Amino acid sequence: MEQELVIGIDIGGTKIDVGVIDTSGKILERMRIWTNVHEGLNVIVQNIYDAIEKITNGLKTSICGIGIGAPGQVDVKNGIVLFAPNLRWKDVELKKIIHEKYRLPVEIENDANCGALAEARLGAGSGSNNLIWITIGTGIGGGIIIDGNLIQGAGFAGGEIGHMTMKKNGPVCGCGNKGCLEALAAGPAIIHQIRKAINSGTQTVILKMIDNDLNKITVGIASNAADTGDSLSLKVLNRAGEYLGIGVANLDNILNPEVIILGGGVMEAAGHRLLKIIKNTVQNRALSVAKNNLRIELSKLGNDAGLIGASLLIQRSVDQSNKGHQ
Amino acid sequence: MEQELVIGIDIGGTKIDVGVIDTSGKILERMRIWTNVHEGLNVIVQNIYDAIEKITNGLKTSICGIGIGAPGQVDVKNGIVLFAPNLRWKDVELKKIIHEKYRLPVEIENDANCGALAEARLGAGSGSNNLIWITIGTGIGGGIIIDGNLIQGAGFAGGEIGHMTMKKNGPVCGCGNKGCLEALAAGPAIIHQIRKAINSGTQTVILKMIDNDLNKITVGIASNAADTGDSLSLKVLNRAGEYLGIGVANLDNILNPEVIILGGGVMEAAGHRLLKIIKNTVQNRALSVAKNNLRIELSKLGNDAGLIGASLLIQRSVDQSNKGHQ
Repeated sequence: MEQELVIGIDIGGTKIDVGVIDTSGKILERMRIWTNVHEGLNVIVQNIYDAIEKITNGLKTSICGIGIGAPGQVDVKNGIVLFAPNLRWKDVELKKIIHEKYRLPVEIENDANCGALAEARLGAGSGSNNLIWITIGTGIGGGIIIDGNLIQGAGFAGGEIGHMTMKKNGPVCGCGNKGCLEALAAGPAIIHQIRKAINSGTQTVILKMIDNDLNKITVGIASNAADTGDSLSLKVLNRAGEYLGIGVANLDNILNPEVIILGGGVMEAAGHRLLKIIKNTVQNRALSVAKNNLRIELSKLGNDAGLIGASLLIQRSVDQSNKGHQ
Repeated sequence: MEQELVIGIDIGGTKIDVGVIDTSGKILERMRIWTNVHEGLNVIVQNIYDAIEKITNGLKTSICGIGIGAPGQVDVKNGIVLFAPNLRWKDVELKKIIHEKYRLPVEIENDANCGALAEARLGAGSGSNNLIWITIGTGIGGGIIIDGNLIQGAGFAGGEIGHMTMKKNGPVCGCGNKGCLEALAAGPAIIHQIRKAINSGTQTVILKMIDNDLNKITVGIASNAADTGDSLSLKVLNRAGEYLGIGVANLDNILNPEVIILGGGVMEAAGHRLLKIIKNTVQNRALSVAKNNLRIELSKLGNDAGLIGASLLIQRSVDQSNKGHQ
């Protein structure tokens, strides 16, 4: 196949990344737009069209397909976003809409699954057919690849790693359950614990770093404070890292993958510190046979994993057609 | 294919079941022998040969293969039991040994995976390609089938569901970790909690049922006591059921299967009571999209799941050869 270009679209609740990407995963052109969820589907789609127009303007190579990563439950076969609470979308036939506009092959997949695909092909999991991608940011999501295939699940809800219960009567999670990994170790949980401790009078160097404005606390600031030996930051990050490590150990015992890759905003802000705690926890808790076959890695593609993974959907679709599976 | 018979062998740490089984999973002849681990590999294998001799004696239909379920880590491709602590086996080339004796096709698989296969084809998961089999007895094991294939794992250690950490500083597990599901909800954990409460002076109808002999406590007795309203038994079984429910909810969120099937000694002894608690817990904790697609069922094949599943390995092997995967 000669060098062809794909449009990748990574739709998030806050922003949408649109890019022109070659088959090696290199992003040649890119644009970021705000999602503006409240403006509704039609406006969002029109904004995507405008972005595509701008980044393909003057392009000499033809576009051979459009790959889209969307949050929530995505019916991959029929190209429908079944349910995406943070977009307020339900049963949106996105594949059909985009296909009717451009008359090109269009593929849609859950955004965390796109991340897993990208890391498996071109990132920290390159060469592996059995890996788990975990993204730790505002929430905790995941994509699982077994024997080279993404686990979609019976209701396209596979990979909801963040909603593993880790503590029976732990803090309430956004999903309604108590003690989910997400409620214990995602960004907001880390920030909440620091704020709570400060409100209870705990001394910390963070206060100086945020000019006493508690709204300015970030995981990055906590990480910097921990680097100076700040005991509150160390305690909170150690606790989050331990819960993340338990989550990784559980997944290792259940699925025995070759690689578990950690990405997302929290890992970008405090990755090296957390990675160490996570690795120690897995060493202490996972079964020997499971942990001896496991590599734990930080994401190589970072924020671009979703966008690059979306573009790979077109390649995957071509592969499947060649195999006669579609 | 005309009706053919298979020999199934289910090797456990205490006993070995050997059977002549037809392609519909019907056990035509069967024999149970003691494993006698301390006598070593050669004696165990000879005992299996003797059992095969006895149950095939006078048989008119020919045997087309031998399927074996073994505990621990099984290298399915090469037919090697890599590590089975309760048999004291390490790197046992069981497929080769049995094949050299009978010159028939031989297939080996982890015993919990055999159970999953049997329930998927002929039991409570019949017709489903996405299911999880959980066996709750002395330990807690599992087999996971996704898109019709067993998850073996990179080191043939997939499905170790019992070693999910459910409580960071919970009771020590046989694996060395703390707070594993197995340490909280398997048979020995249930019995231990009852014994501990009795030793602390808790009043219970169980004492009468066991003639004050604490060695006689079983999960079945606890279940019977719970049926009479015994508050200790109710408390202990509710607690185990809740942890099992959290485990099931976690697996549902991670893998979004169609069916989760519960079997093993604990479920045989107290299944209906535990099933109710497990279902309630999943209802309270799993994500809607995951739980709405899930059936939770008791095993249909009971103690025979492993043996029947072992016999199905030969059929699976034939299927794979036909597909050109082998």
